[in-house]
Amino acid sequence: MNIQLKIRDLFIATGGPHIVVVNKKDALQLGLHFGSRVRLKRKNYETIAIVDLSDSNYIVPEGYMGLFEETQLELRACDNDSVDVESVPLPMSVNFIKKKIRGKSLLPNELYSIIKDLVDNKLSEVEITYFVAGTYFHGLSLKETIELAKALVNTGQRLRLKGKYIMDKHSIGGVPGNRTTMIVVPIVSAAGLTIPKTSSRAITSPAGTADTMEVLAEVNLELPQMETVIAKTGACMVWGGSLNLAPADDKIIKVEYPLQLDAEGQMLASVMAKKYSVSATHVLIDIPVGPQVKVHSIKEAKKLRSKFVTIGKSLGMKIEVYVSDGRQPIGNGIGPALEARDVLYCLMNDRRAPRDLLEKSLIMAGRLLEMGKKAKKGKGKAMAEKLLKSKEAYKQMIHIIRAQGERATDPDKLKLGSHTYSVKASRKGKVRGINNYSISQVARSAGAPLDKGAGVDLHVRIGHVVKKGDKLFTVYAENSENLRRARHTISSSETIVIK
Amino acid sequence: MNIQLKIRDLFIATGGPHIVVVNKKDALQLGLHFGSRVRLKRKNYETIAIVDLSDSNYIVPEGYMGLFEETQLELRACDNDSVDVESVPLPMSVNFIKKKIRGKSLLPNELYSIIKDLVDNKLSEVEITYFVAGTYFHGLSLKETIELAKALVNTGQRLRLKGKYIMDKHSIGGVPGNRTTMIVVPIVSAAGLTIPKTSSRAITSPAGTADTMEVLAEVNLELPQMETVIAKTGACMVWGGSLNLAPADDKIIKVEYPLQLDAEGQMLASVMAKKYSVSATHVLIDIPVGPQVKVHSIKEAKKLRSKFVTIGKSLGMKIEVYVSDGRQPIGNGIGPALEARDVLYCLMNDRRAPRDLLEKSLIMAGRLLEMGKKAKKGKGKAMAEKLLKSKEAYKQMIHIIRAQGERATDPDKLKLGSHTYSVKASRKGKVRGINNYSISQVARSAGAPLDKGAGVDLHVRIGHVVKKGDKLFTVYAENSENLRRARHTISSSETIVIK
Repeated sequence: MNIQLKIRDLFIATGGPHIVVVNKKDALQLGLHFGSRVRLKRKNYETIAIVDLSDSNYIVPEGYMGLFEETQLELRACDNDSVDVESVPLPMSVNFIKKKIRGKSLLPNELYSIIKDLVDNKLSEVEITYFVAGTYFHGLSLKETIELAKALVNTGQRLRLKGKYIMDKHSIGGVPGNRTTMIVVPIVSAAGLTIPKTSSRAITSPAGTADTMEVLAEVNLELPQMETVIAKTGACMVWGGSLNLAPADDKIIKVEYPLQLDAEGQMLASVMAKKYSVSATHVLIDIPVGPQVKVHSIKEAKKLRSKFVTIGKSLGMKIEVYVSDGRQPIGNGIGPALEARDVLYCLMNDRRAPRDLLEKSLIMAGRLLEMGKKAKKGKGKAMAEKLLKSKEAYKQMIHIIRAQGERATDPDKLKLGSHTYSVKASRKGKVRGINNYSISQVARSAGAPLDKGAGVDLHVRIGHVVKKGDKLFTVYAENSENLRRARHTISSSETIVIK
Repeated sequence: MNIQLKIRDLFIATGGPHIVVVNKKDALQLGLHFGSRVRLKRKNYETIAIVDLSDSNYIVPEGYMGLFEETQLELRACDNDSVDVESVPLPMSVNFIKKKIRGKSLLPNELYSIIKDLVDNKLSEVEITYFVAGTYFHGLSLKETIELAKALVNTGQRLRLKGKYIMDKHSIGGVPGNRTTMIVVPIVSAAGLTIPKTSSRAITSPAGTADTMEVLAEVNLELPQMETVIAKTGACMVWGGSLNLAPADDKIIKVEYPLQLDAEGQMLASVMAKKYSVSATHVLIDIPVGPQVKVHSIKEAKKLRSKFVTIGKSLGMKIEVYVSDGRQPIGNGIGPALEARDVLYCLMNDRRAPRDLLEKSLIMAGRLLEMGKKAKKGKGKAMAEKLLKSKEAYKQMIHIIRAQGERATDPDKLKLGSHTYSVKASRKGKVRGINNYSISQVARSAGAPLDKGAGVDLHVRIGHVVKKGDKLFTVYAENSENLRRARHTISSSETIVIK
């Protein structure tokens, strides 16, 4: 069926799939449906778009079709221009999504075709959702996971680094304050190893590493700037979101978010793709275990480890896993500026450095130094401690901060929220539990991560003995309204259990 | 988190879910995600919208949010007005969708909450897709199907008719030319029974009953008009799409379409909801069985029958099922005007009436007359024949056509495509098969249902003996380009098998 429709300029861009809006009555007559593909032709220009339907004549009257900027630009067309509309078959990738929905495994070229079309905005959100639902219901085999990781990388930009030892690390999320990256990266790179670290911003937590690093330096770097920083310092700590590494991953995570589906295969592919896309060769993965984090038991952690190792092997990466304690927050500060202060205290050998954060960072840095053959087996942690004590790691941190664009380096001058409130022990006893989830909620309601100076400063850990009236934690907020909210959150949940 | 953003008027309406577009950077800082809900407040006005994200400053710069017309109207707001934005929890229905995705059964109030929010545009397309995927993967129990059907009806308008016998019929699709409705409804209502029939337009076929009826009369009636027609004639044959009966159904079918998921529970609920919404008490369901229709075996048909009957019982409807032959088209014409001609020939006792269409219609009308206690058990078909022979059914058809708005009634004056092409037997032999799917494709490529006069007129049936050169079917098109397309479709598939 071939017909002419007139363009109705919708005056906006989607930034996503290429959509054309057709009046439902025209669509019914043309045999077009929600999700049909049409080839649009005007003079020598043509493009393919995905059909959306409109009930209302107010948006798109009969005889017209609504175009977003992207499609209009491709056709070099203006409002009221006529365009030839022809129905064309769905892309093959839609059939592959259907195959997965029906429970069949996908071949490498099939996965690639889905991810490629996803990146090229050729799939609708509904189709992407079906892909995610299919992988959630039927899972991904290890083979599929590996191919998905490859497809995620091969459809985006890649940081090309040469060398036998390109180090990287990753923490499975869920532990507040877990800012080891900002201590590990300076130590490892101070030893001469390359470590091109990309990090995320907070999604549901009070701060991601990118949010915390942003207190000290610019993190919204593009790929060439990232390369320059690495060339200068051997390292970087940037936000992964402004690079074009594994761009399909973000689109997948986007449709996973609304139902918070936790598809393991997808997560494995996503993590490994991010490492593979920066040319990492040796990767240490931190899997915290605890009741309020992603992984609840050592057994689960071990299963996950074996999958990471296998996938790593097929992508040419050596993976080691550090199973860590995820029962409580790490460090004192929870919130960007408070966490950045902890990190600087650690790197400066300041007596106010939180021991747990320092210890965990030294263990992880040590493992990476061993993996990168800078230290002998069993000697990594000692070497890490030496690099820290000698201030070489601190100097390296300053070096990286300057290369990325310095914002602040003095831990005692970081701007913290001026509205504070301290929670005190209502009885004497031993701290039996700290609820990761509740503490995060308190920090978020105080304004983190939007307000960099907002958050929680924790004064106790599990096992500490407290007297009635001892300060358990202090909330920082940048205004009284947010402090009020945080207090409300505190009153409605048990953050710290004393018995 | 509470913040102010400025409105950027997007100058279009969605007609669907209430969406607000937020810049990705603002969203990250506000802890908002794709699918988050925000309460928007301006002066005394407030509304809740679903967050979509934009990467680009071109669409929505930082500090702004893009509003579609619906949301803007609710806030009585203009471009550049400031609005308070506050994150609020997801509606409960999203949790129920998640519950279904995880394989749990839904309670009546949970299904209702999903369908209600769907109708009220409170769910995003991605969330609706997960609901459909969940019901596809895990199925719907009979209990859930019944509750879904109720929810579909209770969230829309309903045609309220009183009476012990409100008749209805439905055919499971897939058989080209199967226009029994337009013969059955006049017969049944000529006998004094009420039969308020709503029909669909073609989705993938060359004509739906609404498309064919539209050749003879108006079918885009609204509920009050439909009521008037029924009051006058005891019957109607209108397009279901312009009424607001079970409106959620269309939204579900919309997201089912892209992957052509065939979820049985969804189909059962959808069919039964449509009958329930017109107050039907007695329903005859035609289940054609054949290799190229939805149901492939008698066994499958019987399973489906028992489900229909059970669901009907709980909704207070008596259901009977007619398992019919779906191996080949019914009637000669395939395409709106050609089918309408067959229907009129049947009602007029014209010798050109296709016997198979007439016979099937008489059987079905007879069953309905028996169900409606107008005929004794086993005497329905004879009564139907009498009503046809006496022209009472024909007069009733004219009555209905006039009540709905007459377009045409003379079968020999219906406008058929003037470009024709006849396919002839390439050998002598017996007709062994007619491919429903290919025949439909030929009719569609000739222009049906958009061109009412386009389609296929079939001259043979399975079992007929033909000589080489005998005409098998004639294609009608309204222009030479479409005829060329139809000939191309014919050349690339085997429509009629002669051996």
